[in-house]
Amino acid sequence: MNTKLDELKTRLREASDLGAAAAVLNWDQSTYMPAGGAAARARQAAILGRLAHEKLTDPAIGRLLDDLRPLEESLPYDDDDASLIRVTRRQYERRTKVPAAFMGALFNHTAETYSVWTKARPENNFALVQPYLEKTLDFSRRLADFFPGYEHIADPLIDFSDYGMKASTVHAVFADLREQLIPIVHAITAQPPADDACLHRTYPQAQQAAFFNKVIRAFGFDFERGRCDVSPHPFTTSFSIGDVRITVRYKENDLGDALFSAMHEAGHALYEQGCNPAYEATPLAGGTSSGVHESQSRLWENIVGRSRSFWTHYYPQLQALFPAQLGDVSAETFYRAINKVQPSLIRVDADEVTYNLHVMLRFDFELALLEGNLAVRDLPEAWRERFKADLGITPPDDRDGVLQDVHWYGGLIGGAFQGYTLGNILGAQFYQCALAAHPEIPAEIAQGKFDTLHKWLKDNIYVHGSKYTAPELIERVTGGPLRVAPYIAYLHSKYDELYAL
Amino acid sequence: MNTKLDELKTRLREASDLGAAAAVLNWDQSTYMPAGGAAARARQAAILGRLAHEKLTDPAIGRLLDDLRPLEESLPYDDDDASLIRVTRRQYERRTKVPAAFMGALFNHTAETYSVWTKARPENNFALVQPYLEKTLDFSRRLADFFPGYEHIADPLIDFSDYGMKASTVHAVFADLREQLIPIVHAITAQPPADDACLHRTYPQAQQAAFFNKVIRAFGFDFERGRCDVSPHPFTTSFSIGDVRITVRYKENDLGDALFSAMHEAGHALYEQGCNPAYEATPLAGGTSSGVHESQSRLWENIVGRSRSFWTHYYPQLQALFPAQLGDVSAETFYRAINKVQPSLIRVDADEVTYNLHVMLRFDFELALLEGNLAVRDLPEAWRERFKADLGITPPDDRDGVLQDVHWYGGLIGGAFQGYTLGNILGAQFYQCALAAHPEIPAEIAQGKFDTLHKWLKDNIYVHGSKYTAPELIERVTGGPLRVAPYIAYLHSKYDELYAL
Repeated sequence: MNTKLDELKTRLREASDLGAAAAVLNWDQSTYMPAGGAAARARQAAILGRLAHEKLTDPAIGRLLDDLRPLEESLPYDDDDASLIRVTRRQYERRTKVPAAFMGALFNHTAETYSVWTKARPENNFALVQPYLEKTLDFSRRLADFFPGYEHIADPLIDFSDYGMKASTVHAVFADLREQLIPIVHAITAQPPADDACLHRTYPQAQQAAFFNKVIRAFGFDFERGRCDVSPHPFTTSFSIGDVRITVRYKENDLGDALFSAMHEAGHALYEQGCNPAYEATPLAGGTSSGVHESQSRLWENIVGRSRSFWTHYYPQLQALFPAQLGDVSAETFYRAINKVQPSLIRVDADEVTYNLHVMLRFDFELALLEGNLAVRDLPEAWRERFKADLGITPPDDRDGVLQDVHWYGGLIGGAFQGYTLGNILGAQFYQCALAAHPEIPAEIAQGKFDTLHKWLKDNIYVHGSKYTAPELIERVTGGPLRVAPYIAYLHSKYDELYAL
Repeated sequence: MNTKLDELKTRLREASDLGAAAAVLNWDQSTYMPAGGAAARARQAAILGRLAHEKLTDPAIGRLLDDLRPLEESLPYDDDDASLIRVTRRQYERRTKVPAAFMGALFNHTAETYSVWTKARPENNFALVQPYLEKTLDFSRRLADFFPGYEHIADPLIDFSDYGMKASTVHAVFADLREQLIPIVHAITAQPPADDACLHRTYPQAQQAAFFNKVIRAFGFDFERGRCDVSPHPFTTSFSIGDVRITVRYKENDLGDALFSAMHEAGHALYEQGCNPAYEATPLAGGTSSGVHESQSRLWENIVGRSRSFWTHYYPQLQALFPAQLGDVSAETFYRAINKVQPSLIRVDADEVTYNLHVMLRFDFELALLEGNLAVRDLPEAWRERFKADLGITPPDDRDGVLQDVHWYGGLIGGAFQGYTLGNILGAQFYQCALAAHPEIPAEIAQGKFDTLHKWLKDNIYVHGSKYTAPELIERVTGGPLRVAPYIAYLHSKYDELYAL
């Protein structure tokens, strides 16, 4: 039986190594590759992706999984080998249900759509990309139909990024959140917005980097097993548990952009670096779902990085680094600036309160599109109406409206966005548990110490990698299901004080 | 027939793309990879290497080559398709003559030897690595024996890097060179060495980079299709004709180190960037032999980069960039400093005159070891004796003697070194032809213009990639075989004046 398990592990390791090689190529393309490398790079990435897929869908894996079922059933559920077999089977079944020809056609279509979108967005021309998006919707529905028996047509698509979550669950959670969030947004926006002019002075790149590198190192980011580079859009990528990389971009007139991006990506990276090393190059390595992954980026960026405790320790250092820019700015003014809440057009620039409204809007549209209750051609108008209703402002154009996010134009419609808000909710829920176990955490953060928090997250979440599904992990960590209450309590405790609500 | 040719090209492109992906991984490992990535990177590189090898030795390629023989024979020798079939056949036959198991064992042995060498060299402990080197010699002989019918046992190994060259040819060329070179070395070393103290002041890295980037851009290095990074040992690597990268290292107290390395690697890169784009991802892309490749690095580094013409234009700019370091240094002093000739211990630090003695010593030892006329255990002593005889100094230890170069400890014995001196000879021979066609080249160089030289090299050498073997290319370009006379004439014209010989 061990021979079979070893063979399975060898096959999975090879597929993982090919996938990691593809990730290196993608990282290089986003960071250092000269323009002239693009055509060859597309070919190089494509063949690695194809070979990795072939290895992962090799019928030999199916036979090994069948042969290993007795072993799996003889072991406890949370045994590492049993978990490896279970998670591999789930992924194998998902991958082999979709014909390779369909995936190839989908890949070609999304590549073409992405290319059209890169023209359509600057030209503010939704009509240009509309026929492509209609085809994407058709592809998304057909992909879902390879997984019959779903409750909602979005469920199989949500499964890809947040396995075990359903449209109905997410919808209920979001309705609950929305009901409590809207009054907070209204109360805050009834007051004048905070003054964040201090963040928009000139901050040279080298000092920005020096500061946030110190911060993320203190969080626990291991520079011996990772690094930070520059790319047009910040991201986190893993080539192994020992090599997890993040990127930021710099805006010299926006101190917050690179700083909070770095904390955000470091949160993702801590999760990846904290995985049990025994899971290296297996399907158990890496985070378990987009929601849980986002819970870590949001926790470190917002709950820690935008907290009073954090800046009690770090603001004097930041002032010392930027005396000309921040010498005349009080800690209170700075704290209010980085926690400014104001409805805005762009999701990725939104504050932590209104951000969720951007996500819920997209999630609801995904469901409506998939259900057939909204046509692609009606999407721009629906976007403007819903945006006005939820955020009180009307997007002046589609460029900063329905065309703003790459997700639908470079992938599927369905399952693309819910993870962001699930992450906000889960980050607060996990943090509440960490505080219950270690009430000293905020006081430690106020001293620039993050070891207790990092260790708790590592022991309870990071180390498990993808061994447990998100619902299983939430149950293990919190003793119950996903709950909105801790996130709402977090928002109230922070913003009631800030805005004297 | 076109279908067969297309299938061949597809298979070759896939193998090339896998090889390029492996090259990206290797580049990343040498430039940016954190220490924690090493274990996974070794696995990732190994599987890419294995898959590329499998594709290149697939019997389907052999069948396609057989099927395509009539097409090849119907086309002119220098037709691109005929050349593709011819060069592919040569490489396929070479690769398939060696059993995969032998190559695997060889790869494991050289990896182990390299690891032992990284300890043995700092410890000055040849005995530690001696048994490994004995096994390497055995592997090298056995590898040669997969290619029966050779004139000298080194010939098949020389073929790997300088196809079409033989031990007897190289030996004759080197004997000819040696006879004329030794008197030059003796005449120069009879005089006091040039004073190069001006190169060893403090030169900040950023200004060094600003200067040599301007220089290699002027040479013709295309930064849209390449880049320059930092690594412990300078190298050039290609991921496609549109993405050719070089690296340098910086020594703040040695201006020449990064500067001449950058020119050297840029010479390799110009060759790769200048290849006919139609050869992309085929065996015709990239330089044709190590000797011809080295001819370009040496030509740009030494014949151009250490010439009076070059510094007529650039020295005032260098002085302006480093006023504190070079303000009191005359152009003549600087020119003498960068052309200082003095016997020294380390090959890679040697000047362009004595450098060849380092190479010939290694080449002769490779032949003697392979012939059985020298035992590995006697190598350190033989090294000291020959070094004393040729260069007039005795290495104080093996660290800076027989242990100094990685080549034998990370690869084969045989074929490892001759390319360097073949490159010196060929660089001068090609340059003489360029001058015959364009006598204005030195005057242009004195104005910081390199277009005429670059275009001549591109049209006559670079564009052909690997279409012609080195002997074929030399014949096409120079109208005859490899000749030592132009190189000796170059050395005399330069050093007779410098040292008033």
